[in-house]
Amino acid sequence: MARLVMKFGGTSVADVDRIRNVARHVKREVDAGHEVAVVVSAMSGTTNQLVAWTREAAPLHDAREYDAVVATGEQVTIGLLAIALQEMGVPARSWMGWQIPIQTDSAHGAARILSIDGTLLRERLAQGQVAVIAGFQGIGPDNRVTTLGRGGSDTSAVAIAAAIEADLCDIYTDVDGVYTTDPRIVAKAKKIDKISYEEMLEMASLGAKVLQTRSVELAMVYRVRLQVRSSFDAPDQVTPAGQLPGTLVCDEDEIVEQQVVSGIAYSKDEAKVTLVKVEDKPGIAARIFGPLADNSVNVDMIIQNVSDDGKSTDITFTVPQAELPRAEDVIRKARNDIGYGALKTDLNVVKVSIIGIGMRSHAGVAKTMFKTLADKGINILAITTSEIKVSVLISSEYTELAVRALHTAYGLDAE
Amino acid sequence: MARLVMKFGGTSVADVDRIRNVARHVKREVDAGHEVAVVVSAMSGTTNQLVAWTREAAPLHDAREYDAVVATGEQVTIGLLAIALQEMGVPARSWMGWQIPIQTDSAHGAARILSIDGTLLRERLAQGQVAVIAGFQGIGPDNRVTTLGRGGSDTSAVAIAAAIEADLCDIYTDVDGVYTTDPRIVAKAKKIDKISYEEMLEMASLGAKVLQTRSVELAMVYRVRLQVRSSFDAPDQVTPAGQLPGTLVCDEDEIVEQQVVSGIAYSKDEAKVTLVKVEDKPGIAARIFGPLADNSVNVDMIIQNVSDDGKSTDITFTVPQAELPRAEDVIRKARNDIGYGALKTDLNVVKVSIIGIGMRSHAGVAKTMFKTLADKGINILAITTSEIKVSVLISSEYTELAVRALHTAYGLDAE
Repeated sequence: MARLVMKFGGTSVADVDRIRNVARHVKREVDAGHEVAVVVSAMSGTTNQLVAWTREAAPLHDAREYDAVVATGEQVTIGLLAIALQEMGVPARSWMGWQIPIQTDSAHGAARILSIDGTLLRERLAQGQVAVIAGFQGIGPDNRVTTLGRGGSDTSAVAIAAAIEADLCDIYTDVDGVYTTDPRIVAKAKKIDKISYEEMLEMASLGAKVLQTRSVELAMVYRVRLQVRSSFDAPDQVTPAGQLPGTLVCDEDEIVEQQVVSGIAYSKDEAKVTLVKVEDKPGIAARIFGPLADNSVNVDMIIQNVSDDGKSTDITFTVPQAELPRAEDVIRKARNDIGYGALKTDLNVVKVSIIGIGMRSHAGVAKTMFKTLADKGINILAITTSEIKVSVLISSEYTELAVRALHTAYGLDAE
Repeated sequence: MARLVMKFGGTSVADVDRIRNVARHVKREVDAGHEVAVVVSAMSGTTNQLVAWTREAAPLHDAREYDAVVATGEQVTIGLLAIALQEMGVPARSWMGWQIPIQTDSAHGAARILSIDGTLLRERLAQGQVAVIAGFQGIGPDNRVTTLGRGGSDTSAVAIAAAIEADLCDIYTDVDGVYTTDPRIVAKAKKIDKISYEEMLEMASLGAKVLQTRSVELAMVYRVRLQVRSSFDAPDQVTPAGQLPGTLVCDEDEIVEQQVVSGIAYSKDEAKVTLVKVEDKPGIAARIFGPLADNSVNVDMIIQNVSDDGKSTDITFTVPQAELPRAEDVIRKARNDIGYGALKTDLNVVKVSIIGIGMRSHAGVAKTMFKTLADKGINILAITTSEIKVSVLISSEYTELAVRALHTAYGLDAE
């Protein structure tokens, strides 16, 4: 017997038929003898309608009232799912954020969970009652309903799992797990059985959109074992013992067979900015990156070319594409202070990354990457590294070629 | 300066445009210097959709979960109305039942309000903030959301008015007040300026559907001055001093010019049942009406004909049309115990009533009624009276004729 949290998103509860399908998934776990808490989102489309109404009422609306309106989406789902479960003979009760309670700060529309009292939930679970919990919401310090912002339901599920000390938090989604790389690019990509929190965080922040970064961070802090699995699997089918239906995100100690490189990620959301003929003098970096930081532009990679004449140099850096207009604006305004010849931008770049806990104990991992790319004639524009990843910036036309070559080079191809 | 409760139903808040219109009504009162609490229903259509979903999830659903789902309708409206008010520069805050709190019993789906803590609301009102309150809902003893059942928003409004000691509770509806009788039948029907709680209760229970009976009862108990007025009036138009825009339901002491008869009501929702040749013996009434009461059939009028032969008699009574099948069933099952010749039913009957506080101090009021009907050749099938009303059962084909004749006879026709 284990204690489980199961999380289902908006498309999994889009109508009453699908809600009934979710109920069957839950029944399978209850029949297996587990204590189950379910976290659900609003029926897909509902939240958009509610948001549209608040905008129609006023373009600049009060975030407190926005939250009161938008939180109703999840409230409808939990009531309907509790009813569907009861209809199948499974005792169930719905829970809104304020009933548990899930305490958050007062940042309405993007609130952070401060604490969850798991006492009541654990009592009910012990009585054999399924707890059906509204994701994406909590209660603020002034007794007002808060919402956690986009993707908040994953975070709710992990926080609930921590509060009730669950053995596992299953995130049901439209894919059956985390892959060694994007299967749309590499047909031989394999589902990863187990991946460490640190690796998953890098994968998530580098473009693998299966899990929200914040929920993985929270899982890591509270050591919540997180599984990504598919809501399209037959709901009545029990996974054979010893097998994992999805990808388990867990502590690295739990992963016996460590790969040197676990996965290859890529991100097309990069923009390259080059300042040509910047005066090569002390403090120039601060004059460029100070104003960018002050204006919340997230600079990722930075390359300073060697100066030819000892007087001027080129400085290149990357920012997320959405932040490029702001970055250009900031740089232009600081032109007199920085002093540069020209400002060039390039959107045709991609960041390709290799990720693996094993790098920490293996030398030569980066060298393999550089050699593999060189053999294919791919020019590296910039490099960044961390303890468990190496990222390179390349021209975007080489994306597929680079990802496939690296996937083979690190032995990740399925037989 | 006064403290006001304003209540708007589902059609008045059907979309964001109409919600904005409600906001203008509220702004008018705020601009006049009043403290205002607004009670609103769900946007029309919303509740039906929510109810349909619960039925789709399970035909026999848990009332607790039904309430969790259905209560979201009002929650959406209060958020949107608060936003619309803020957009007009009127400080406003939404309140759900559990936030106030409005304590109810645990009869989910048809809960009764037990108590309302008006402290927080009064504080906010005193600060100049409009309180926008979800009607139709409260919180039960187990911290679960409850709903009050159909028409519950009127009751919410009156209960809130009592809790915050409001000077007036305005119920905005699709008519501009209570009329001396149905204007569709009598063109000369007049809007009543003031009517006592007792008279309004009789009017409401006798078919004038402007106010829910329960809300009038509550208003009478807590002496809440209640006004029925139109939500279609121009929202910016201020009523001249000394005039009433609608009908005020109040204590009879406040009504200076008492009419003997204030209004004529009629109800077509009557079914007549006759038991032919019932044995004329002691205890027979108990054998008929005991089983009916046990099966929750509401018997209204009863006539026992004089027995011709001293051995058998005919007994006639009326029940609401919806209860007729149940009444017939009960009577047939008790046939051996009662002993009767035949069971006849008739749906072509109408109950016409004259209502007026003035009856208590005026003799001959009923006599005028009987004479007026007799002059028109209308046969009276049954009669019931209370201190402030006389009701007669007549054949339904005479409805219009009877109502018009009585309206004239009691001097109610407008010039």
